[in-house]
Amino acid sequence: MYGPAGVRTSLQFPVPDHMKAWVLGDPDQLLLRDKPTPVPGRAEVLVRIDAVAICATDLEIIHGGSPASIGGGLPFNKHFTPGHEYMGTVAALGPEVDEFEIGERVSVEIHAGCGQCKRCRQGMYTSCLNYGKPDKGHRANGFTTDGGFAEYAVNHINTLARVPDTMSDAEATLVVTAGTSMYGLTELGGLVAGESVVVIGPGPIGLLAVAVAKALGASPVILTGTRNKRLAIGKELGADRVINIAEENAVDVVKQLTGGIGADYVVECAGTEATINQAIHMATRGGKICLAAFPHHPVTTDLAHLVKNNIYVYGIRGEGRSATRRAMALMAKNGSMRPRFTPTRFRLPICLLRSATRAIGSRMPSRW
Amino acid sequence: MYGPAGVRTSLQFPVPDHMKAWVLGDPDQLLLRDKPTPVPGRAEVLVRIDAVAICATDLEIIHGGSPASIGGGLPFNKHFTPGHEYMGTVAALGPEVDEFEIGERVSVEIHAGCGQCKRCRQGMYTSCLNYGKPDKGHRANGFTTDGGFAEYAVNHINTLARVPDTMSDAEATLVVTAGTSMYGLTELGGLVAGESVVVIGPGPIGLLAVAVAKALGASPVILTGTRNKRLAIGKELGADRVINIAEENAVDVVKQLTGGIGADYVVECAGTEATINQAIHMATRGGKICLAAFPHHPVTTDLAHLVKNNIYVYGIRGEGRSATRRAMALMAKNGSMRPRFTPTRFRLPICLLRSATRAIGSRMPSRW
Amino acid sequence: MYGPAGVRTSLQFPVPDHMKAWVLGDPDQLLLRDKPTPVPGRAEVLVRIDAVAICATDLEIIHGGSPASIGGGLPFNKHFTPGHEYMGTVAALGPEVDEFEIGERVSVEIHAGCGQCKRCRQGMYTSCLNYGKPDKGHRANGFTTDGGFAEYAVNHINTLARVPDTMSDAEATLVVTAGTSMYGLTELGGLVAGESVVVIGPGPIGLLAVAVAKALGASPVILTGTRNKRLAIGKELGADRVINIAEENAVDVVKQLTGGIGADYVVECAGTEATINQAIHMATRGGKICLAAFPHHPVTTDLAHLVKNNIYVYGIRGEGRSATRRAMALMAKNGSMRPRFTPTRFRLPICLLRSATRAIGSRMPSRW
Amino acid sequence: MYGPAGVRTSLQFPVPDHMKAWVLGDPDQLLLRDKPTPVPGRAEVLVRIDAVAICATDLEIIHGGSPASIGGGLPFNKHFTPGHEYMGTVAALGPEVDEFEIGERVSVEIHAGCGQCKRCRQGMYTSCLNYGKPDKGHRANGFTTDGGFAEYAVNHINTLARVPDTMSDAEATLVVTAGTSMYGLTELGGLVAGESVVVIGPGPIGLLAVAVAKALGASPVILTGTRNKRLAIGKELGADRVINIAEENAVDVVKQLTGGIGADYVVECAGTEATINQAIHMATRGGKICLAAFPHHPVTTDLAHLVKNNIYVYGIRGEGRSATRRAMALMAKNGSMRPRFTPTRFRLPICLLRSATRAIGSRMPSRW
Repeated sequence: MYGPAGVRTSLQFPVPDHMKAWVLGDPDQLLLRDKPTPVPGRAEVLVRIDAVAICATDLEIIHGGSPASIGGGLPFNKHFTPGHEYMGTVAALGPEVDEFEIGERVSVEIHAGCGQCKRCRQGMYTSCLNYGKPDKGHRANGFTTDGGFAEYAVNHINTLARVPDTMSDAEATLVVTAGTSMYGLTELGGLVAGESVVVIGPGPIGLLAVAVAKALGASPVILTGTRNKRLAIGKELGADRVINIAEENAVDVVKQLTGGIGADYVVECAGTEATINQAIHMATRGGKICLAAFPHHPVTTDLAHLVKNNIYVYGIRGEGRSATRRAMALMAKNGSMRPRFTPTRFRLPICLLRSATRAIGSRMPSRW
Repeated sequence: MYGPAGVRTSLQFPVPDHMKAWVLGDPDQLLLRDKPTPVPGRAEVLVRIDAVAICATDLEIIHGGSPASIGGGLPFNKHFTPGHEYMGTVAALGPEVDEFEIGERVSVEIHAGCGQCKRCRQGMYTSCLNYGKPDKGHRANGFTTDGGFAEYAVNHINTLARVPDTMSDAEATLVVTAGTSMYGLTELGGLVAGESVVVIGPGPIGLLAVAVAKALGASPVILTGTRNKRLAIGKELGADRVINIAEENAVDVVKQLTGGIGADYVVECAGTEATINQAIHMATRGGKICLAAFPHHPVTTDLAHLVKNNIYVYGIRGEGRSATRRAMALMAKNGSMRPRFTPTRFRLPICLLRSATRAIGSRMPSRW
Repeated sequence: MYGPAGVRTSLQFPVPDHMKAWVLGDPDQLLLRDKPTPVPGRAEVLVRIDAVAICATDLEIIHGGSPASIGGGLPFNKHFTPGHEYMGTVAALGPEVDEFEIGERVSVEIHAGCGQCKRCRQGMYTSCLNYGKPDKGHRANGFTTDGGFAEYAVNHINTLARVPDTMSDAEATLVVTAGTSMYGLTELGGLVAGESVVVIGPGPIGLLAVAVAKALGASPVILTGTRNKRLAIGKELGADRVINIAEENAVDVVKQLTGGIGADYVVECAGTEATINQAIHMATRGGKICLAAFPHHPVTTDLAHLVKNNIYVYGIRGEGRSATRRAMALMAKNGSMRPRFTPTRFRLPICLLRSATRAIGSRMPSRW
Repeated sequence: MYGPAGVRTSLQFPVPDHMKAWVLGDPDQLLLRDKPTPVPGRAEVLVRIDAVAICATDLEIIHGGSPASIGGGLPFNKHFTPGHEYMGTVAALGPEVDEFEIGERVSVEIHAGCGQCKRCRQGMYTSCLNYGKPDKGHRANGFTTDGGFAEYAVNHINTLARVPDTMSDAEATLVVTAGTSMYGLTELGGLVAGESVVVIGPGPIGLLAVAVAKALGASPVILTGTRNKRLAIGKELGADRVINIAEENAVDVVKQLTGGIGADYVVECAGTEATINQAIHMATRGGKICLAAFPHHPVTTDLAHLVKNNIYVYGIRGEGRSATRRAMALMAKNGSMRPRFTPTRFRLPICLLRSATRAIGSRMPSRW
């Protein structure tokens, strides 16, 4: 029976003491297993997973194990449950929790900082110095602590954002991605109304960066990429101009669209040597670049250009400064910010996905 | 006779209508010439040069011409007067100027923005979008407008800082360098008391970054370099620890001195591929790096580390945000911030320097 | 003939050398007079006025004279032309101006700082320390330099924002008001998505604060006032809840709507002792209050509450930090931000307004 | 025996299971009692109190009870141990704590936020929305949780700053006060080098604000007050000018010392109607005021002056943004920042103080 002292449940949302969960096996192996339903502690709740999106990083984790400590060289992590873009329903409350009620629909962000290191104390919880140390109170569900490819997950209350009735479960799984884009724009200064913003790379973070920048009044919003289909989604989400870099010189076009001086803000979401150099050269003097993706190897870039032109570069990790809640507020208001889903099967091996979908209740959408 | 309508002079500081000035000739040629004494316009004053320091950039300009527009590919600029680290005495006032009086000792900063572009309007005058366009009101003395290797120079009043009686002429020429260091620390957040700061490269900007960081309470302040003599000056200026990177692994030592997590702030003043990578790897999660120097070629660096660790990089140009005046205030208070001069002959061809020194009144000190 | 050296005009927009302008006479007297058409200087353009709104402050100026220096106690200022909420067409360019072209539609903001004082250099041009000193380059059209109740006015290029084709002349006169609201929200931190915002006082600035806050994603946006008609306009502009303070206790309702803790941001646009105290008591711990209006006498308030609750108060003057351009970008995008005009006759003496309207081409709308 | 599971102690610092502590009795009554030695939890340590200063607020608490919730109207709180300005030695470690070691000398700051509310998540832990709710993890030792008038106290590791060997116990008790001053200057912008700072009120916070402002390079630093003896201490701590407001008009003198424009920053530490109005009128256009003290009744002030002059007012509570650690770093470096103690008997009833001093080992200094 589920229900340790201090944890509250409700008859309406009965919680089983065991649940189904997908767990890592050997590299590239994802296994469906029974696990004890996790129990929320202080400042935590139990979330019944209602929908989960699959991110490219999930596939990397299935392939290579959980990056419990970034760069830490941990061994492959068996029995770990990945999945970080999920939403669901509050099913149980940890001791003293009164910030949420059982039955509320919530989407989640990934990072709950330890709350006791220097960075957490500055409000920089995604840069927690105790990253990967659950003993210190740090959680990054789907990365260092069990995530959302399961029937239930435990979340710190700091990582929850209420989902309005007008937003579907599937849409709500995108909020953490939008939060990452919002965090990037926040760190660039946040005041983008009337400023020129270029987004490089029309993946999920890039597309939502277009949507968030447009919602905040950026003008023009320019999207670059190589896939016309994705660029078309960018147009729907508000890009004033898209550039297929296979057909046009992105730096030249951006300069031309900005009166010759370059873009105020560039959000780099492609993470290649070529696009990072484009970002550097299309930023205006005094401009700012957000690196939201990264290359897997050292890259050769014109860093001198940054110094000569007083350009700042923000390597962002995660979705800090409560950006997920702010993104939720914008998405709740602007239906047009929410991309229409095409539930293609993505890149997850089809058999795995099928059984996963069946196992956890057909609640797993895919991504663009 | 000097004295157009609206410009005020004083009998105590008579201004000749012609002056001696060093000007560029062919590459690597610096010629002593007679020039009309320049005339201050609105919001400008005429400064009688009392002391001038020689910066490595001056030598680059003597060698390659004035970089009137960064990256602009201008032809070699004959008749241009270089020199940007100078101080002197106010000798004449432009129309309407009442912010300064004739006879005041002043040191200068380089950049006077146009005041009408987007960056100037944000207070980012060293990132003026009209850089190199004097018609628009931009000035960068010694770079795009005539500088201090002369008997007189015109300065915008925004570029002046009063020199206290307790500071020598020679010391006052360092204020713009200290201002650059101060600007870097400002852009990193400015609140460095109790934070760990590493300065890479014990050139003038690096050494003054040590002094400024220490004065503002940074702890520990660590200086890295290759020349023990320079590192020793760094110790005198307040470095808690110096690292000769030929003898020790700078990244390892910094990690060890900071409890394993790395430095809060790194000020990179060496501008090489190796040291930029050191800066990246010695910064803590959520840390910040200031690039105050730059390599002359593209460099291969581990930019992914920035993204994974939420590290921000600030390419700084010049001495913005009135940092020069703030640096002056700190230097006026802290005698210990002022390095003792060893007027070695530096790298300027000895014959040139000698004649220069003689010509403009033996007032030209050299640098460390 | 109009056309001093260096100033460019176009045959398409011929500029007469004299124009009609309303000028101050005795207190409460506004006279239609012929004046020489003003001539733009460096970084200035001549604007042909196409529409002008009348603000309550205009009426104060007609009544009491131009506040050339706030609190300066100047004598009543005859021959001065008021009017600061106008838009028009660029009709002539000052020397060296290439930032705008003749024929472009522009709306204006009020303040052009001197560009040479400490505040201007920080980007705080509405707090220019040379306020009211045109000799130093300061302009505040309609306050310290001639304004828009005339056929033409001179504007610094920094004070212009392009008007998109989709925006009517009448709407464009509101941009400076929206800019003031935007400036207030900027100084409160700017990142209002998902944050609770209360606007007190449904005058023009308050109503546009509702529209701007909503556009930026604030939630909930609450508007308080006494006039139901105005509150209804607030609802149209996006207020989630309006409070008629004659019927409900504003502090209680705000607390209840915010889970008991109070509002993150309060924008006070009523300027009475009662409403300022409401602002203080409805702000949450760590909340922020913008004072965008002010009482004409000292007021008795519970300042201790600010200290006990770490609340910050921002007295804002004008429309700084290029907020007008940012507001223009938001308004251009969001038709719903633009209130529908009811050209009632407002409070300007009817005879004056009629002749004014006739004189300057029927281009003068009124306000709500 | 002291020593629950998970808590670590050391033979060198044996911890008794009971201790002596001063507790509130009836109003104005402070009683010496035996209490169980408190036990540190997760992220907490036990501190052996070595020195404690007495603050005016302690006397208010002895008189009126613990303000467990500001404005909360709690009943008088018997058995509560006051005292918030203390330092001591780490004597036991809570579970998982490895950030400190037993035997380290530490001084403390007051506030440990809950870590789970909106404000804590922004890094504003002194504005914790769960203030006064220890169940949620909030602590404010000496205010809402037991403080330092005892042999031992429990502290969250976030509230500790290491004391260098060169600093005496008595000096170290001042660090939280210096931290409050530092927090005020931080919220005003932090970059005070070369800026004019007026401190109103030479109490402990005011005097340390002088010391901190001076250490950071502010110039001039002006101190106002009524007691010449205190003003003299201010001079020793670095004030460039002191003003006895019984003898001089503070506003006039400040204007005169600042070239007629007023002070960039004013730190108000007196909390009277008169001095708050002085603060308002001596601040420059675009200036900033920190309210670090507050009047006990509503006050009548010229708030319009704030709006007309774009002045911002920061009501600060506590010692946020890790200002205590930053203050410690500055004090460790600058011996001159540390006021010399004159252990007068202050205002605590002499008998109480004597027995307190005897009871907790003669370690209780008094304040100026």
